[in-house]
Amino acid sequence: MNNSVRVFAPASVANVAVGFDILGFALDSPGDEITVSFSDRESGGLKITAIHGADNKLPLVVEKNTAGFAAQQLLRHLGKEDLAIDMEIHKKMPFGSGLGSSAASAAAGVMAVNALLDHPLSKEEILHFAVLGEQIADGAYHADNVAPSLLGGMILIRNNEDLDVHQLPIPDDLYAAVVHPEVEVLTKDARDVLSDKICLKQSIEQGGNLAAFILGLMKADYDLLSRSLKDVIIEPQRAKLIPQFYEVKNAAISASALGCSISGAGPSIFALCKGLETAQKVGAAMEKAFTQAQIENQLYISKINQHGAVVIE
Amino acid sequence: MNNSVRVFAPASVANVAVGFDILGFALDSPGDEITVSFSDRESGGLKITAIHGADNKLPLVVEKNTAGFAAQQLLRHLGKEDLAIDMEIHKKMPFGSGLGSSAASAAAGVMAVNALLDHPLSKEEILHFAVLGEQIADGAYHADNVAPSLLGGMILIRNNEDLDVHQLPIPDDLYAAVVHPEVEVLTKDARDVLSDKICLKQSIEQGGNLAAFILGLMKADYDLLSRSLKDVIIEPQRAKLIPQFYEVKNAAISASALGCSISGAGPSIFALCKGLETAQKVGAAMEKAFTQAQIENQLYISKINQHGAVVIE
Repeated sequence: MNNSVRVFAPASVANVAVGFDILGFALDSPGDEITVSFSDRESGGLKITAIHGADNKLPLVVEKNTAGFAAQQLLRHLGKEDLAIDMEIHKKMPFGSGLGSSAASAAAGVMAVNALLDHPLSKEEILHFAVLGEQIADGAYHADNVAPSLLGGMILIRNNEDLDVHQLPIPDDLYAAVVHPEVEVLTKDARDVLSDKICLKQSIEQGGNLAAFILGLMKADYDLLSRSLKDVIIEPQRAKLIPQFYEVKNAAISASALGCSISGAGPSIFALCKGLETAQKVGAAMEKAFTQAQIENQLYISKINQHGAVVIE
Repeated sequence: MNNSVRVFAPASVANVAVGFDILGFALDSPGDEITVSFSDRESGGLKITAIHGADNKLPLVVEKNTAGFAAQQLLRHLGKEDLAIDMEIHKKMPFGSGLGSSAASAAAGVMAVNALLDHPLSKEEILHFAVLGEQIADGAYHADNVAPSLLGGMILIRNNEDLDVHQLPIPDDLYAAVVHPEVEVLTKDARDVLSDKICLKQSIEQGGNLAAFILGLMKADYDLLSRSLKDVIIEPQRAKLIPQFYEVKNAAISASALGCSISGAGPSIFALCKGLETAQKVGAAMEKAFTQAQIENQLYISKINQHGAVVIE
């Protein structure tokens, strides 16, 4: 058993155009890092000793902190909540970016504690606790960012309540270009802008695209993936919250992206691409579209990350 | 080149619980048969010489007949509309059953003419003409019955307008039990009963089930198929049109069906099952539930038919 463990959990792209609340995939970077170590302090229990890179915006109180709460729930489940464990959080990705920042922290938190205790549970078994942590930040019991961040891969969540979660096949040449513009979109606004009702016709169209997207992954049929990556329900409602959305999307498509849409609740925008070279070209075009409008932004190019949360020390 | 060709095209189950307007599969039986032959009559063109088994309910006028119109459109496309061809239609399945009766006729019609001309086009290429025939009966350009009836298999229609049609993988042990009760459900009523709007929440749930159903087929994961085969949108609205629907469904589930729902617009009810023996047990239970309510019915047990329309003579 180690005395200290450091874990990395990656950012993730939820919704993936055709799978609102049910699809998400992990990126190679950015991501959060969390260190946990056994402490010899007399007061037992989990303690967050420091949070780096968050400008004091995240709570040190365990019960109010995504990573802390998730880890504590896992420790309680294991009957180990009295163990003196110190947690140090290194936020290395932007908040409110639509890249699953709180989910990465929650995933890293449970992964770190599980690793410190020498892996009593599998990743699949600790997912529930990570989702509980995410719920602190998001209010909803949702795995579309947490599951990819923890497990890696392109994840289908058949049902969030039951955590009926599945890794989908990933074609070898599938890359993501993701641009995070420095504008604020509150998750609450992103939710509020959505109508409770949709047209049956739209639902049929989206269903056809969703099913074809799954089949396209399975067959590594990039043309089918491209025809399928169209969100006729959520994107048209949320696009207005993101300045330059359609300019960026058009730039991505013109540069041969398979498809392009909003990452999670935004403002980040992702494109899926065939091959690294295309992803780089697409990413540069998206970046340029934001920069021309004087919007600061960061670009991330990545394969679909198949590992999820990993012990790095 | 033959002087005469006889073709069988099978019945089909559209919607398949989770794929309203986008999924359908073919059965081994029942189905329609169509014979076409070159004629030496002086007046050229396609002529329907007889329709058997339809109680004079189907038009002999080519342009008004599903099979006739479909075949004629194909002949026109091939520049052969002046050829003197006689068509004889053998209806061997019930109308208005929700089993794709008109689609089977349309599929058989185009398949027969294409075969008579020694297959100038592939099945994929003649699909469009069969859908045009179905449109005569149904009013809509829809391939969810025609495509499985012609091509065979479990079919995903990403998009009806473009006929972006795909055969899905089928687990070896997948069987269907389908019961047709002798009650009338008009397709118009089945359409009218559907609300134009649905809840976003239902759409998410149905999407999760649809995506998981595709994945379940791919992985031959029968448990996942079973968890996925739930229609939260269409079935609750249409169930009231079919007497004893929930009794029959409960009987199927109790007898270990993976799932059970309405076939097409009804009144037929299908169940998917693992293995022939289970399908027979499930079919018997469904049959009994109708019979106990004094509703005459026919039972069909079948693997997913992988061949679709075939030349039988």
